[in-house]
Formats: sequence, C-alpha cells, structure tokens
Amino acid sequence: MIIERSAINPRRDQDYPEWYQQVIRAADLAEASSVRGCMVIKPWGYALWESMQKIFDKMIKKAGYKNAYFPLLIPLRFLEKEAEHVKGFAKECAVVTHSRLQADGNGHLIPASPLEEALVVRPTSETIIGESFAKWVKSYRDLPLKINQWANVVRWEMRPRLFLRTTEFLWQEGHSVHSSSAEALEETLNMLEMYRIFAEEYMAMPVICGKKSDSERFPGAVHTYCIEAMMQDRKALQAGTSHFLGQNFARASAIKFINGEGVEEYGWTTSWGVSTRLIGGLIMAHSDDDGLVLPPKLAPLQGVILPIFNESSKAAVLEYCTALKRELEGDGEISMEVDERDLRGGEKFWSYVKKGVPVVIEIGMRDIGMNSLCFSRRDAIRAGKQQCERNAFVATFRALLDDIQVKLYARAMKYRDENTLSIDSEAEFFAYFRESTGFAAAHWSGDPAVEERIKEELGVTIRCLPFGGEGEGICPFTGKASKGRAIWAKSY
Amino acid sequence: MIIERSAINPRRDQDYPEWYQQVIRAADLAEASSVRGCMVIKPWGYALWESMQKIFDKMIKKAGYKNAYFPLLIPLRFLEKEAEHVKGFAKECAVVTHSRLQADGNGHLIPASPLEEALVVRPTSETIIGESFAKWVKSYRDLPLKINQWANVVRWEMRPRLFLRTTEFLWQEGHSVHSSSAEALEETLNMLEMYRIFAEEYMAMPVICGKKSDSERFPGAVHTYCIEAMMQDRKALQAGTSHFLGQNFARASAIKFINGEGVEEYGWTTSWGVSTRLIGGLIMAHSDDDGLVLPPKLAPLQGVILPIFNESSKAAVLEYCTALKRELEGDGEISMEVDERDLRGGEKFWSYVKKGVPVVIEIGMRDIGMNSLCFSRRDAIRAGKQQCERNAFVATFRALLDDIQVKLYARAMKYRDENTLSIDSEAEFFAYFRESTGFAAAHWSGDPAVEERIKEELGVTIRCLPFGGEGEGICPFTGKASKGRAIWAKSY
Repeated sequence: MIIERSAINPRRDQDYPEWYQQVIRAADLAEASSVRGCMVIKPWGYALWESMQKIFDKMIKKAGYKNAYFPLLIPLRFLEKEAEHVKGFAKECAVVTHSRLQADGNGHLIPASPLEEALVVRPTSETIIGESFAKWVKSYRDLPLKINQWANVVRWEMRPRLFLRTTEFLWQEGHSVHSSSAEALEETLNMLEMYRIFAEEYMAMPVICGKKSDSERFPGAVHTYCIEAMMQDRKALQAGTSHFLGQNFARASAIKFINGEGVEEYGWTTSWGVSTRLIGGLIMAHSDDDGLVLPPKLAPLQGVILPIFNESSKAAVLEYCTALKRELEGDGEISMEVDERDLRGGEKFWSYVKKGVPVVIEIGMRDIGMNSLCFSRRDAIRAGKQQCERNAFVATFRALLDDIQVKLYARAMKYRDENTLSIDSEAEFFAYFRESTGFAAAHWSGDPAVEERIKEELGVTIRCLPFGGEGEGICPFTGKASKGRAIWAKSY
Repeated sequence: MIIERSAINPRRDQDYPEWYQQVIRAADLAEASSVRGCMVIKPWGYALWESMQKIFDKMIKKAGYKNAYFPLLIPLRFLEKEAEHVKGFAKECAVVTHSRLQADGNGHLIPASPLEEALVVRPTSETIIGESFAKWVKSYRDLPLKINQWANVVRWEMRPRLFLRTTEFLWQEGHSVHSSSAEALEETLNMLEMYRIFAEEYMAMPVICGKKSDSERFPGAVHTYCIEAMMQDRKALQAGTSHFLGQNFARASAIKFINGEGVEEYGWTTSWGVSTRLIGGLIMAHSDDDGLVLPPKLAPLQGVILPIFNESSKAAVLEYCTALKRELEGDGEISMEVDERDLRGGEKFWSYVKKGVPVVIEIGMRDIGMNSLCFSRRDAIRAGKQQCERNAFVATFRALLDDIQVKLYARAMKYRDENTLSIDSEAEFFAYFRESTGFAAAHWSGDPAVEERIKEELGVTIRCLPFGGEGEGICPFTGKASKGRAIWAKSY
C-alpha cells in the first residue's frame, strides 16, 4: 500500500512548526502535560534518550569521568556567589518556599511551613557541585577532578516547545577542575570534540564547532564553545555547549588546591552539557513528510519484521520471522522486533514508518516460498519495497544500516552546504535573511552593537565564531577590521 | 600488613549508627550536603546505584514494562484528587510557589513572580502519571499498560540519614493499568517477586515477603506488599514495596476503558518502587568492622589488582597485571582494575577493603617468579592472604566470586534465623524487645489498637504479614483469634 499524500499533515514546506508537532505525535515521542512547559516523554521518545545516554555515558567514562549525583535543590545563597550566573538564571527559576501543605477552609491545599531560606530547583549545578568540589580538592594530586551527572533541571520557560524548550528537561552535565588554565581550556575543547563526534557519527547530524560571542556566553563563563546544526527550515540549533569557566566558579565556591610549590591557588573549572533538546534536533535534521527518520546507530530498533499470515500460515510465518530476527540481531548490537499484532498491514507498516525505524521487513507465505523477504528503507520510503533473497539480506544487513547512516549524514551535509552563503555586504546580508534564510558566513569586527542591531532588525544572531574560520577581512556592517567570519542565522 | 584493630571505628557492637556513618565515609559512598536532608552521592556510591539500575532495568523490561518520563512538578489540584494520598504526603512536600528571583534592597535574592497555582516537587507520581494514563487508555485493547520511570523524588525529611532517609532520593517507580482486579493483584505480586529475586540473588540479602497491615499501607492503596530484611543491629529495613491500588487512583485520574462488552469501566492500577535506600540496606546487611562488603554480582568492580614494583621491575609487573586483568574480565561481565597509583601498599590495600571490593589481588616480582599471585577475599579479610598459581586462579575466579556471593547470603540468612523468635505470650514479647531485639513472629488478631500500643510502648511495629505464615492461633495481646503470625520488629 503506497499512500499518495504524505503521512504527516501539514508537510514541511507548508507549515514547519506544525509539521514538527505532528511528527512528534505520529511517532508517539512525547506530549504536553498539564504542568506549564513540562512534557511527558513517551516510551518511544524515552527509548531514544536511552540510546543517546548509553553511547554518551560510555564516551564520558572513557574520557576519565565518573558519574555522581548532587542535590536537586540549591540554597539561594549559593546562587548569589557568582554575580553573572545569578543574573542569567534569576528570571527562570522554580523556587521552593514551603515544606508542607495544609487544607484551607474550602478543603483546598495551600502551602504551609515556610522555609527559612528558599531553595531553587537546579537550573544547572555549578554552584551546588562547587560546594562538594571545594571539599574534595586539597592538593594538585587531587587534580584533574572529573565528574559527570545525569539529571533533570528546571528553567522556567515562557514559550515552551516539545524537546526544544521545556521547563523541565533531562541532561548530562560534566564538571571538571584543573590545576592550570591551559589544561582546563584543553578539556573544554576535548569535550566539545566529543559532542561533535556524537552529533556527526551517531546522530548523522553535521555540526559547526566554534566559540560563542560574548553576548551568547553561559552566565559566569569565560568562554563558551558550541556545536551548531542546521535544521530543515534552515534555522540553527545549538546542540551542545562546553564552557571554560576560568577561576570564576572556583572563587565563588572556594575550590582551592596546594600546587607543586606548596602555594594555594584557585582551581580552573569547566562544565559542559547536552540535553533532551538533542531529540528535537534529531527530529528536525532528518525527518520527512512521512514522519520521523532515525539514524540506525541511535534507533532503539534497527528494524522491525512484520509477519503477514492467516490462521493456517501463522505458525510457519512466525517461525521464519523469529529465526530471521535472531540471525539479524547477531551478537546483540542490533535490536529487531517481530510485530505480530492483529492490525491491518498498511496501518502496521506505516506506524513504523512514522516512528522512523530504519528498515521495515515484511514476510508472507509467498516470500517464504521463494526463501526471500520484502524490505523498505526508511530513508527512501517513497522509493518502494525491495525483494531480497533471505540469506543475502542477512549477509548485507549491517552494510545496509551503515549505508542508511552515511546517506542521512550526506543528505544533511548537502542541505547545509546548499543553504550556507558567504556574504560580504550589508545589503546582501539583509536581502538574504529577508527573502530567504540559512547560514551566512560574514565578517564581524567584534562589536556587540552590531549583533544587537541585527538581532533586532532580522531576528538573526551569531551562532558561533567557527574554528578554522579565521582569516582577516572587513566587517560589512561597520567597515572595521575583522579577524574571521562568524556564522549568522535564525535559531531555535 | 594486618591491622590488629578494625579499620572502622567505632565497631558495630560499640555504636551501630555511628559505625554506619563511618562505613559510608571510609568507602567514600556519599556525604551530607548543605541542603537539609539532601545527600551527595559520590562516585563509588553512584557506581553501586548504576549496578543496581542496570540489573533492575533489564528485569523490568523483561516483565513487559517500557520506560518513560513524567514531570517533576505536580499541580496541587492533582494531589487533591485522592484524599488518603494527600493526607499521607501533605506533611513532607517541597512546594514551588514562585518562578523567578529578584534582588532585595541588600542585594540578596528573594522569590518573585508568584505562581497562580503552587506546584509540588513529586513525592511519588501516581497522580501525574494518572493524567497521562487517562489519555492513553481507551479500550481493553490498550491494557495492560506497563510503564516504569527512573526519577528523583522529594519527601521532606526531619531526621535525615544517608541513603536510608533523605529528602531527595533516586528510585524507579513502576505503574500499570489492568482490566481486572485479579490481573492487577497478580501483577502487584509478580513485581514483589521481582524485588525478592533482586534482593536475594543480587544483593545476597534474604527478605521476608508479605503484606503490610492497614496502618502501614501506602496512602491511597488497597493493599501494600513489601520485602523486609534484617540488618546487623537486628532491626528491619523495608527494602521495596508493591501496591495494589484497586480503582482508587483510576477514579481520581479518570482512567477508564471500554471493556469487551462495550461498557465503560475504571481501570485497576498498581505501583511499586525501590530506591537508593537499597544502598543503605546493602551496607547494613553485609559490612563488617573493616568497612563495606559488596556482593560480587553488584560490586562495580569484582576485583582489583595491586602491582608491587620498583623502578626496575615496574614494566614487567604492570605487563603481568594487565594481562591477568584481561583474562579475568573475559567476555565483559566482570570488571577489574589495575591500580598503579604510587601509594604505600598497606594504604592502597586497605582502601579497597574499606570500599568492599570482593577480591583484592597483589602481585610483585616474587609472585611473577613463581607464576602465581596473592589474593584476599573481602568476605573473610581477617583470614589472611592466599597464594595461588596464576592459571589455576584464572580458571576458578568465577567460582570464587560465586562462592563469596553464596556465603554472604548464607551468613545473612543465618543471622536472621538466629535472631527471629516465635513468641506466644505478651510477657515474653515485651521481655524480648526490652532486653534484646530481633524479629518476633507473633499472632495478631488484626486489631489496630494493639499495633498502636506496641509501637508506643516498645517502638516495635508489624513489618508484614508474611506469605506462608498463615495458620490459626491466639493473639497474645488480646486473646482473640488470629489467622496467622505477623513479623514484628524495630525498623528503619
């Protein structure tokens, strides 16, 4: 059954934001809850997060980090310690002020037992982790200290959007302390490189690595580095950040160590994080008008097998399917499912298309008779189904998955290349963003007033000062000298 | 190096509560934070939680559950829906009342932007998950619905104690909806059985399975079932609970389905959870006066290899150790570490004893010369070190780990048996708990007044009405008929 019209309505070219919501609904990834800005991550969405966590957790541990867990609630006096940090987060904090509920006269609950000191639900954990680090670090022998936390955080969100901007989200936050500025900076960049590898090799999502301009820095950081990806509406998504915190948080939390010469110094710290926002990026990078498209390396299932049977053929078909599943799964790196639910074939088939499963295999008595099977690639679902001899399929299944992974990356890369323009005049820059959009590589003298004006007039910001983008030129907005091209774009 | 006095001070028999704190400190598992009642779980403690999660997560998925994630913050009107539930949790809730901070006149932060409706940080998630379940369940075809969540929860704790009672803790909470009372009850008991298997086979901690008396039921449940373990001070620890919720929460959240006859009915729900409290149980079940003792199946490391070398022997010793590590790890189920830090031998050795690593191996040039090694079992650390031919050790390493696992269970079982008494008179019961303590198996007519009086006078409660403990008798407190013996104990 081939559906002529797209499975997702509206299509990307009709209404991109609504298409995004409909893909999430069709793939059954998440839903809004009654709690403003908070989402419910449904099983298929959470399985995707678990895939990401599993891969990331290994990478993080390989980089020498150990996982730990710090309190959800942070006393206000901790936040107060780093002035810029407070300013950055004060406007979006969930504040706990009471420790009990009681019934009012009408039988409704009201807060009771006010706390002596209010607590904030962590928007990020530098200050509370800093308290522990100050105890754990005494000497240069304790350094580097490398800790990661998997946790939920809350930042009050006025314009929530599933996965992309939610009041509560899940993330990992890495925190390290070093004995020198150079080592901390190197670590910041190493972790950014880890994010690049994850985005490109696992999510099949090309990213531009670079440094944020001062106006987009993490509150309290010296430098913020990021990976930026292009979505299919040509807007940018910041997919991960890594911060060089200098001694700012070490001073705020009194993280001090005795160096090799016996002198006490403040430590140099870093922090870096990625969140469930990545799922939003994954959706927008690859999905099409028929629903979610998942890269095989991150899909919770690499493929699904749909048996087609009637009462008399059921046993034979299921046996064939189950044996195939076992062979395809091999040593356990690959997950397959046989779905024997009693649903109409088309409905079943399209449910997996919409969920983004990389390969959908259909098997009926006719296929078994020919010792074959029929399969569809999710990345080319409209190209139709292919018949394949069973053993040949088993032998080439890993190569098929690799090919899907590679093609998704290439497609996203081509799209980004086609929608990135080097621009050298203000007029061209304004025309580009007014008539269409995309990434613009344009020189910038470093003047924040330019950033502000362009943000106001076009809704466009500097996504990053890309690594390798250095090279002298003239800023088209001010005529001043520039040390390199910045990447400008509209963004999520 | 054998230390004559114990590594933990005080010993268990001197001051059990203080010994518990000192084991946690010596094993570097966790520490208190500045946030009242909240703990920091340090890397070794968190690795233990990760071991538990990994095993549990597999068991839960095998039982047909899928993981999902629901909001941290719950509107008060949700809690109000189930009257008993509110009553149970109202006294220990963290209440979020504001969404912003601002500076007061003195530059201190104060809460700003009061919320229209206050939110509670989840103490448990029945009500917020119920909201989603009501949407997800339409027909009997959607049932059973089986969802698990790994999350943090907050219950304001006035007498906090690391792992055992903390304001914030980590847990899993399973939630299911069924089309009949019988099926939901069966599920409740199946999940309890999963907890029993985990406690006994992985934690090596024998447990008594049974039902709670009404006074100890989960607020809002019809029946609460539990597993109860004996700690080394002969007090009981409730290690996991599984609740049959009847239709109470289905009514509160409007979880309704159309049954096979086309008639709308309320669903029947269950919930069940275990938390980081299990780590407290693990510590108290097996640890000794030299620190933590971990069962091999849950230890983050099954063993550690300590190379003993000088400058000239370093290369040879490390090579021998690394090759041994690889062989012992085999297919990846076993984790070993070679610790080449430059520490005094005794200090290094005892750090692993205190951390509870099941097997500590020491290797120097002399051992290599004899193609052998020297090892210590953590469960019998005072029995001294054993020399063993290298290949023989490799061949029997798994058996050694199994033997430690089995012996820990047997030791805990023997301890519980020796400290459980069947009691048939009130005088004997009072004498038992006044002069010593332990588990008492005593008849009970079901009268809550008896429970209350005994709790008041002795600080003893009914831990459970054990399965298989049925059998008619006379309640020694009232002379009334009893249907079975209850397990009575002091508890955590």
